[in-house]
Amino acid sequence: MIVYSLKPPYYAVIFTSTVTNDLDGYEETANKMEELAKEQPGYLGIEYARSEVGITVSYWKDLNSITQWKNNIEHTAARELGRKKWYQKYQLRICKVEREYGFER
Amino acid sequence: MIVYSLKPPYYAVIFTSTVTNDLDGYEETANKMEELAKEQPGYLGIEYARSEVGITVSYWKDLNSITQWKNNIEHTAARELGRKKWYQKYQLRICKVEREYGFER
Repeated sequence: MIVYSLKPPYYAVIFTSTVTNDLDGYEETANKMEELAKEQPGYLGIEYARSEVGITVSYWKDLNSITQWKNNIEHTAARELGRKKWYQKYQLRICKVEREYGFER
Repeated sequence: MIVYSLKPPYYAVIFTSTVTNDLDGYEETANKMEELAKEQPGYLGIEYARSEVGITVSYWKDLNSITQWKNNIEHTAARELGRKKWYQKYQLRICKVEREYGFER
């Protein structure tokens, strides 16, 4: 679940959120979106964690692949449902990854 | 704990990690580093979550403030301890945030 050794430059979408108490259908949709994202052109990987807030970082080849994923019909529908039901707040950031370093024991 | 409404361009450091079973001192040091980071020039905010992996995203004004924080003596010591004891693996990415969007219910 850690995405390793990509070769900058590439893009990251950082999505940080807090959720409501009405999480009916949330996990199912999140899993489905992850599977769907993996099939998209330019998809490089995804990392996520949740405690007080949830952080999902998805990695993409370029801005164009992010735009295509944003415009995907099923993804658009899931996002609308998210705003209607599941998300209390979120912040989404589009970033160019310039450097990276890794460590492994 | 969600960092809102910063004004791109600025920088994000995405730190994704898995930890060992020897977490003695980890949380104390992590909290101390968070407090210390907040005092650094160019610090804009921090977000974190942990489940299977931990993701910490810190936000900075520019590359220079990231370099200064990297070279901070206490931070350097904490990082060395992290590699010696706490981290199984990690990946660190330095990114330029180009755009951001927010939602609030």
